[in-house]
Amino acid sequence: MALVNEHYLKLAGGYLFPEIARRIEAYAVANPQTAGRIIHCGIGDVTEPLPAAAIAAIHTAADELGRRETFRGYGPGNGYEFIRNSIVEHDFHGHGLDIDASEVFLSDGSKGDCGHVLEILGPGNLVAVTDPVYPVYVDTNVMVGNTGPANDAGGYDGLVYLPCTPDNGFVPEPPADRVDLVYLCFPNNPTGSMITREQLRAWVQWAIHHDAIILYDVAYQAYITEDGLPRSIYEIDGARRCAIEFHSFSKNGGFTGLRCGYTVCPKTVEATTRDGTRVALHDLWLRRWNTRSNGVSYPVQRAAEALYSPEGTQQVARLVEHYLANARLLRQACEALRWPVWGGVNAPYVWVACPDGLSSWDMFDRMLSRANVVVVPGRGFGRRGEGFFRISAFNSRENVQEVVHRLKTFAAVRT
Amino acid sequence: MALVNEHYLKLAGGYLFPEIARRIEAYAVANPQTAGRIIHCGIGDVTEPLPAAAIAAIHTAADELGRRETFRGYGPGNGYEFIRNSIVEHDFHGHGLDIDASEVFLSDGSKGDCGHVLEILGPGNLVAVTDPVYPVYVDTNVMVGNTGPANDAGGYDGLVYLPCTPDNGFVPEPPADRVDLVYLCFPNNPTGSMITREQLRAWVQWAIHHDAIILYDVAYQAYITEDGLPRSIYEIDGARRCAIEFHSFSKNGGFTGLRCGYTVCPKTVEATTRDGTRVALHDLWLRRWNTRSNGVSYPVQRAAEALYSPEGTQQVARLVEHYLANARLLRQACEALRWPVWGGVNAPYVWVACPDGLSSWDMFDRMLSRANVVVVPGRGFGRRGEGFFRISAFNSRENVQEVVHRLKTFAAVRT
Repeated sequence: MALVNEHYLKLAGGYLFPEIARRIEAYAVANPQTAGRIIHCGIGDVTEPLPAAAIAAIHTAADELGRRETFRGYGPGNGYEFIRNSIVEHDFHGHGLDIDASEVFLSDGSKGDCGHVLEILGPGNLVAVTDPVYPVYVDTNVMVGNTGPANDAGGYDGLVYLPCTPDNGFVPEPPADRVDLVYLCFPNNPTGSMITREQLRAWVQWAIHHDAIILYDVAYQAYITEDGLPRSIYEIDGARRCAIEFHSFSKNGGFTGLRCGYTVCPKTVEATTRDGTRVALHDLWLRRWNTRSNGVSYPVQRAAEALYSPEGTQQVARLVEHYLANARLLRQACEALRWPVWGGVNAPYVWVACPDGLSSWDMFDRMLSRANVVVVPGRGFGRRGEGFFRISAFNSRENVQEVVHRLKTFAAVRT
Repeated sequence: MALVNEHYLKLAGGYLFPEIARRIEAYAVANPQTAGRIIHCGIGDVTEPLPAAAIAAIHTAADELGRRETFRGYGPGNGYEFIRNSIVEHDFHGHGLDIDASEVFLSDGSKGDCGHVLEILGPGNLVAVTDPVYPVYVDTNVMVGNTGPANDAGGYDGLVYLPCTPDNGFVPEPPADRVDLVYLCFPNNPTGSMITREQLRAWVQWAIHHDAIILYDVAYQAYITEDGLPRSIYEIDGARRCAIEFHSFSKNGGFTGLRCGYTVCPKTVEATTRDGTRVALHDLWLRRWNTRSNGVSYPVQRAAEALYSPEGTQQVARLVEHYLANARLLRQACEALRWPVWGGVNAPYVWVACPDGLSSWDMFDRMLSRANVVVVPGRGFGRRGEGFFRISAFNSRENVQEVVHRLKTFAAVRT
């Protein structure tokens, strides 16, 4: 008799974005005359075309695959050297950081990696996440059995939630009690907050002291605009002993549909067996990739490489500046309405307190029905997301200007 | 203190193909004058260029991603409807099989899926594999803790091994004792054997009777040449209740470097909780994909769709015929040497008994050093692979003809 993984049955409700899609669809069916006006500032999906350098690279790679002499079949499970070398040269060595190409694992996206990393970690780890939080961290821990059941507080028993509130600038301090794994994401999704070097240093010191591992997500690294902020956790002394870092090409190169990211697992990060033996996670992670994968699609690897070329670098910079300018407009619009607002400076997300004491799903529904603008209700990111909503800056300038206009109207006529 | 997944520490030795690569590298370093002569008939990697229809589709898709109006970001976790519709139309409905597009899950390769499916199945399942076996089935079960430690017999405690020998034509019968999950692969990797409809019917009846699930791998489906053999397990009545089927575009469309495959999980396949509740695996599998993935790279999805176009279908047929003709030449060469040989008729692999009582790794080493031909030692596929080796037909005609020539020389001068 085949047994099911019962941990899946603990998962509360649908994954956030499918639920949002369901509500949009229901609205569109009920209101066909205005459905065409809907502007999506919900899911953080890029809207601008791929950089020309990436497209050219895909064309070249496709043609290579069409000729016997240049055809390539199975690639290394962790990615070709050409892309791993480009990554370490530009993202690490160029910033004085000591990461070897063998410590880089190319993947089809950091969303997957954030969950897959749990495969090499044991059951029995106590896991901490921020609240609000990117839901993938939570759901993947539920799936592998690192939590108890869903509870009335809207979370899961057995997970440690680190409150992120206006009081701490949405940057939590390390917990006093035992935690074995912690997910941190800066620039933060969903709040757009950014951690300082001193705050991150405190986390690294805490992790080393407690022999914990920090799973550090820098998917929005390209959006850091202010000086002196850490672009990578490996800027902090000691991080090579305690941190795995997740990178994405989705939000800089616009690869949400092309699918590519990478994980850095330094050879010096260790975890422990129950009898106290130290094990380098790098060996296990490499075995994981070689056993389960034949690497990322070759044209996609070439497209990622092209983002590091001189033209690619310029094109990426223009894309990021476009979205950051959108973020400034959205932030200013909220400020003009005197809605308390965070983020949008070092991140493509603007995090806003719901006006008039509205709940975040009520705000979502009103914004959808009255302004035809899709935002993300903060509650979807956790209990402490209640009372907030997220606006994504990933859009055309035209759409963002229209959203700014509609926000004014919305605020003027709201009941 | 972060704990490691200790099951990984049970994994015996390296994954087979990296070990082969290591021995080739060592030979090449020690013998630089003949290293250039090496012909690879080892890992089952295609060698011929991608079909022109697939390349054209990649070009078109890349250009779409370069224009704002046609840009696509995040796709569905289970793949776009266009490709899932093409799949069910051509691979199932066209053969009279009842599979819905919502039961198809596109992925970046069936190698991954064969392991990932264990995520939705519980601990406590008793798992059976054939012996010899594609190593991924075994290693992924070790990683998730479905086995005990490696044992002296070269397997793992807690796994049920189904002997595949010349006596049963390398097609095992269902076990008499309890098993909850079984992996079957036909056309078989590595032996090239094929199951009959009657034999597969016996397996489906066994699975229904025991409430077991068959994980059925048809990565080599395109190589079935003989009439009356089952191309899909869903040709058998009842299979929709007990079977998940894994498909690949690697060996028909030559997608080993492009990365695409799909899994069929019928809505009618159920597993059970410990308290006896029946759960549809389709719901869990969909949740798995939506949580962990944003789907396959868009240009790759379009390339896969193109394989089903009239031109694509013809181009795939020519590729398959090319490799099958290679297989016939290799098989005939072995027959001419009076080496007992199997496969190569409905599969791109030829399975050969080692001459002179050689062990399979000795045969590998001799073939490498004396003929400069890389084969796969049967021992790498399991204990009952000992005494056999696999020759892959994935090569150019020229290389295969040269291998045939070298086999004759090898046999003539062997000690």
